[in-house]
Amino acid sequence: MFNLETYLQKRRDAINQAINDLLIEMVPGGRLLMAMRHSLDAGGKRLRPVLCMAAAEAVGGSPASALFPGCAIEFIHTYSLIHDDLPAIDNDDMRRGRPACHTAFDEATAIFAGDALHTLAFEVLASQKTDGISPEQQLRIIGIIADATGNHGMIEGQMRDILAQGDALTIDDLRSLHMLKTGALIKAAVVTGALCGNGNERQIKALETYAANIGLAFQVTDDILDIKGNPELMGKAVGMDERLKKATYPGILGLDESEALVRELVEESLQAIDPLGKAAEPLRAVADYIAQRNH
Amino acid sequence: MFNLETYLQKRRDAINQAINDLLIEMVPGGRLLMAMRHSLDAGGKRLRPVLCMAAAEAVGGSPASALFPGCAIEFIHTYSLIHDDLPAIDNDDMRRGRPACHTAFDEATAIFAGDALHTLAFEVLASQKTDGISPEQQLRIIGIIADATGNHGMIEGQMRDILAQGDALTIDDLRSLHMLKTGALIKAAVVTGALCGNGNERQIKALETYAANIGLAFQVTDDILDIKGNPELMGKAVGMDERLKKATYPGILGLDESEALVRELVEESLQAIDPLGKAAEPLRAVADYIAQRNH
Repeated sequence: MFNLETYLQKRRDAINQAINDLLIEMVPGGRLLMAMRHSLDAGGKRLRPVLCMAAAEAVGGSPASALFPGCAIEFIHTYSLIHDDLPAIDNDDMRRGRPACHTAFDEATAIFAGDALHTLAFEVLASQKTDGISPEQQLRIIGIIADATGNHGMIEGQMRDILAQGDALTIDDLRSLHMLKTGALIKAAVVTGALCGNGNERQIKALETYAANIGLAFQVTDDILDIKGNPELMGKAVGMDERLKKATYPGILGLDESEALVRELVEESLQAIDPLGKAAEPLRAVADYIAQRNH
Repeated sequence: MFNLETYLQKRRDAINQAINDLLIEMVPGGRLLMAMRHSLDAGGKRLRPVLCMAAAEAVGGSPASALFPGCAIEFIHTYSLIHDDLPAIDNDDMRRGRPACHTAFDEATAIFAGDALHTLAFEVLASQKTDGISPEQQLRIIGIIADATGNHGMIEGQMRDILAQGDALTIDDLRSLHMLKTGALIKAAVVTGALCGNGNERQIKALETYAANIGLAFQVTDDILDIKGNPELMGKAVGMDERLKKATYPGILGLDESEALVRELVEESLQAIDPLGKAAEPLRAVADYIAQRNH
């Protein structure tokens, strides 16, 4: 039997170790490093690097080949959380049970720490060599991650999220907002892993479908947890969406139908990777985990 | 006789055209694009892409080979200006004679527009192919630019600049602050150009010395202009350094000695590229221009 708990623990240990090694190697000490560490060490789930490594495994490659690219994606994710929490944006004082970066330090430091993590991601992607990955593949990976981070992905989603506050969105608008804001980077993590594992185009296609579905499922559970989650387990306030007048899945579909949607999305994600066989076992377990998480 | 005015005009036209083409090709319409354009179209001098192309030329390469990398560096420079102007940082309402990005839009949009330009730079660097540049060289260029943008360069300089406000810096502290804040990216622009032009390591070394000196000369003239510049020509308020209690060259050395330092730095930059002969004529003219600029 596949034990997800053990698997996640092993991966997270390797990821946390690699993040620490990269910071020691690439970032000089000082206030910026402290602020970057504050947000990186805040007990994140490391979902994106875990998915990146699991995707490499799922196409028959080595998970280690996707370790550094996975860390780079985690740097981008962390930068986006730091900027999203700023007073001018979501104005969240707490993140993962600890003061947000701008609360622990100050706004200027938080803006720069986010910026520094953003750059560091690309520095890692350009400079860390992995056996078996050609320079052409490395450039393709940088392009895929930049595309998912920028105007065709995360940052456009963050902009729309702010613009849509107070608006009554349709379910399609909400879906495309979240595909951009969180879905694009999750998909990039999975595709990057597949490329690191030298997956073929058919496998990459299957993994894209998997990623699009779990990315959305992740967001819908986020919305659900903002209503019925336990703030202590989650390490942040609940009810924020309502306070910020954000459109949510439960707000549009109701709680029951949102929960049904999560199950449906997970089902579709599992179907997509069915042809990948036993090597995709970790990805299946992660899909189930996303549907059942309580924080 | 080399005519700098004509040369700069020709280069700037090509750079502005390329920036526009890249935005049309790579950035979907909407508020983010408007904010990015607002800051990109604000009449910047395009010093970094001009230097990048002139360095390609100086090593015997084609200036066109450095056009897209030069634009990517301009995107990074523009992102840094947008974030630097924010209320939490320098709190500058005006930039180049127009409202700063957060004044024309709002803080959230300005933070995201800066972020989007930052990502776009790396997307351009990874995806735009140039004849004669190998994938290995392209990765090396991305690494050099990321290194100059991040914790070993610009962002560390911006952080130190904020932290040092109100402090009495020594001339060495001030020098290293500016080598990070503006010098590193100017140096990266010149080295990138040399790599695009397939320059050898000896040529690159000479250009690094050139760039370090003109980068500093540029900053010293900036400090001088903040005291004796014409706000109308400059499109921004003068006396900002004093208001923000920033250490400056004239503040430490006096105005006369600062002007002497500029001449000295330009002299050193010219000596460094003397062996490059006639092909480096544009770089020489740019060095003189930096010393004599009035805005």
